[in-house]
Amino acid sequence: MTSEDSSRTPPGKDVAPQPLRGFRDYPPPEAGARSEIRRRMRAAARRAGFRELETPSVEPLDLYREKSGDEIASQVWAFRDKGDREVALTPETTPSLARIFAGRAASEPLPVKWFTVARLWRYEEPQAGRTREFLQFNLDILGVGGLEAEVDVLAAAGLALDAAGAAGLYAFRVNDRALAEGMGRALGAREGVRFFRAVDQFRKMDRSAFLRELETAGLAADSARDLADLFATVGPGLSAATLAGFFDRIRDWGLDSAALAGADRLRRLATMAEAAGLGDRWVFDPTVVRGLAYYTSSVFEGFARSGDGRALFGGGRYDRLVELFGGPPTPAVGLAIGDQTLEQLLRSAGRWPDGEPLLDFYVVAMTPELRAEALRLTAELRSAGRSVDLDLMGRSTTRQLREAGRRARRAVLIAPRELERGVVLVRDLTTGDQAEQPRSSVGPWA
Amino acid sequence: MTSEDSSRTPPGKDVAPQPLRGFRDYPPPEAGARSEIRRRMRAAARRAGFRELETPSVEPLDLYREKSGDEIASQVWAFRDKGDREVALTPETTPSLARIFAGRAASEPLPVKWFTVARLWRYEEPQAGRTREFLQFNLDILGVGGLEAEVDVLAAAGLALDAAGAAGLYAFRVNDRALAEGMGRALGAREGVRFFRAVDQFRKMDRSAFLRELETAGLAADSARDLADLFATVGPGLSAATLAGFFDRIRDWGLDSAALAGADRLRRLATMAEAAGLGDRWVFDPTVVRGLAYYTSSVFEGFARSGDGRALFGGGRYDRLVELFGGPPTPAVGLAIGDQTLEQLLRSAGRWPDGEPLLDFYVVAMTPELRAEALRLTAELRSAGRSVDLDLMGRSTTRQLREAGRRARRAVLIAPRELERGVVLVRDLTTGDQAEQPRSSVGPWA
Repeated sequence: MTSEDSSRTPPGKDVAPQPLRGFRDYPPPEAGARSEIRRRMRAAARRAGFRELETPSVEPLDLYREKSGDEIASQVWAFRDKGDREVALTPETTPSLARIFAGRAASEPLPVKWFTVARLWRYEEPQAGRTREFLQFNLDILGVGGLEAEVDVLAAAGLALDAAGAAGLYAFRVNDRALAEGMGRALGAREGVRFFRAVDQFRKMDRSAFLRELETAGLAADSARDLADLFATVGPGLSAATLAGFFDRIRDWGLDSAALAGADRLRRLATMAEAAGLGDRWVFDPTVVRGLAYYTSSVFEGFARSGDGRALFGGGRYDRLVELFGGPPTPAVGLAIGDQTLEQLLRSAGRWPDGEPLLDFYVVAMTPELRAEALRLTAELRSAGRSVDLDLMGRSTTRQLREAGRRARRAVLIAPRELERGVVLVRDLTTGDQAEQPRSSVGPWA
Repeated sequence: MTSEDSSRTPPGKDVAPQPLRGFRDYPPPEAGARSEIRRRMRAAARRAGFRELETPSVEPLDLYREKSGDEIASQVWAFRDKGDREVALTPETTPSLARIFAGRAASEPLPVKWFTVARLWRYEEPQAGRTREFLQFNLDILGVGGLEAEVDVLAAAGLALDAAGAAGLYAFRVNDRALAEGMGRALGAREGVRFFRAVDQFRKMDRSAFLRELETAGLAADSARDLADLFATVGPGLSAATLAGFFDRIRDWGLDSAALAGADRLRRLATMAEAAGLGDRWVFDPTVVRGLAYYTSSVFEGFARSGDGRALFGGGRYDRLVELFGGPPTPAVGLAIGDQTLEQLLRSAGRWPDGEPLLDFYVVAMTPELRAEALRLTAELRSAGRSVDLDLMGRSTTRQLREAGRRARRAVLIAPRELERGVVLVRDLTTGDQAEQPRSSVGPWA
């Protein structure tokens, strides 16, 4: 240690205790609850026949160029690595999944049903329910051209949301891009992307602003009014049963065959969703188009029945993405549930889980000489599968018991005379009941 | 779609199906196995009274400057974000943990026992067992100045490794930096860091190269030979019982009081480790010094009993780090288990887990008309907690049954006549036994 060293400001003193803007720390008990939710959602995905895939957190920037749609592309955290390659922190897992599948397509039996649980990053303005780093739970089915894939992925999303604690709190909004695009064409929209962008704004702006958006997309004023009127009558979405009414209203719009095929898919999807037990959660919503450029027909989102309207998840069919990555033409459907909006939903409904149950035992040494014995017993109980802790700070018996009361369901008291007789005292910290147990047997202490 | 669009090369065609150098994809079943190992290690940490902490993946670069030691600092993936801030992909979680604790120290009851399961990144040359992206399982105890913390963190590491499947395959090498540094001083080493770096090389180079390293650190030739001879006799490490022999050999080196205090800590730690059931895995190893600059006394690593010697984990005591982040002076001990070396160990021992058990059921529609019924039954079984899948591709009954045989323990066959009578057929796919079950009850099909 030189004199220069000691005069130097400790480097950490300048570091704020907060994480970077848009990032969150999850100290206990939050991290435990998040872990528990992930565990339940993973189990739900497996129950629905999905297998886990783990994708890298850094990918070549090229993976996201022109594939993810304007919105994501502008939000990618890209940088040059030390080898001067342009790389990106992954903003979504679907391109990685498509890349990985493309490399294995020859040997992979279809259908592929994969799920991922991944941290992702987007450089966007932080706000409630939107962070720059977030966790996403993805479900994808590859190789299925039929609507069975849409139904299965929505069913799995339902299982996962229910497992997370959100049962009854959400529904699915479903639409078809071919129908939406065809409606746009019928109304004189110049190009699909701009029309989608306008449609997507319907629930986010007032009527006059929405009309202006539609006119920018090429609609005549009366066409724009017709569409706004139509959307307004749909309200929060139509159930499968009332879908027919919507199609009646646009029957004389002169929709082309692509649009009519989209309408037909929606009708069949509604019937299948009903069979799959999703009828109570399925609504048609013609304003759902989703931001990602690669969706080809079905699009859907999950939304909280009460809440600010931010999507719980988004997804759709992306039949051309795998081919874009050099794989064989492969139909695909997927969706992604974000952790931030799900957390908001569960918290606001009082369903946020307790990820940290009490310990089974807290081992108390009644005298300092018995600490080695406490160590030994703790090790044995932990090896037998119990959750156990003990004092590490040389605290008094009183303080050990207080700590036990705070953290455990039962205390094991090691006292000199009892230990000589080969027993310890087990105290139920809820009832206060106390009983002797043989030291040698840990089995009965379940 | 303009003509320019169609003449453009699809952007994905140039993207290699491989991940970036030093990164790994984990397709099924690897990801499932990794998930299962993480689940078991998390459960083990909770059993030992640790609570989960989740730290960000990006931190200000300042967090790592001068704190993590040369080795890590040179390997940090740093970049400027869009707000021109210098940020880093986290190379370890301990600085984040210290930062978070510093911000909460006033309200956090001691001791703090936290664990993290985090992806981390280091820009180093990829090799077997070393990737640029890896997963680390960290255990840290804050607030305990006594050796109880070392014992508890090692015990928890043992539980976690055993839970992962590594029982019997590993041991802990333990040393004390104050002892090592004092030995260096006694032998004429000019400065601790260079001496540590030389000592760290003992197992990685031959004797003559090691002697040169020591001489570079300031040791006279005969002192260097003495140390090489001493280290050579330690072999793969000394058990707690034979620790005394080592201290006998260096009794006349004239160690100062700091070094003797280190030796005393090692002796007491050996005794406590014995009580905590770690005696079979505890070895003293004077060549273990660890690379991180912030360790203050105890240092340890886990190693595979048979293998290439790469550490399964590293750790130690870092009593000054929390203060460096603006928190109150807080003693601390921690260790980190890496996923790559653990995977190598488990695979080489045939203990890599099967993360993907067979499905409980595969539902087979014997005629196309029964597909809706198959959807319905699948949904019911999944909601009842069973893992179930069904055909999504309109396949023949024969191919459905083949798929069932590949993926499930039992098949549920929905056939027209049986369904009319309110029953389905359940076939055990191992034995081939088949029996009718009432359609209405899913309960008994456990």
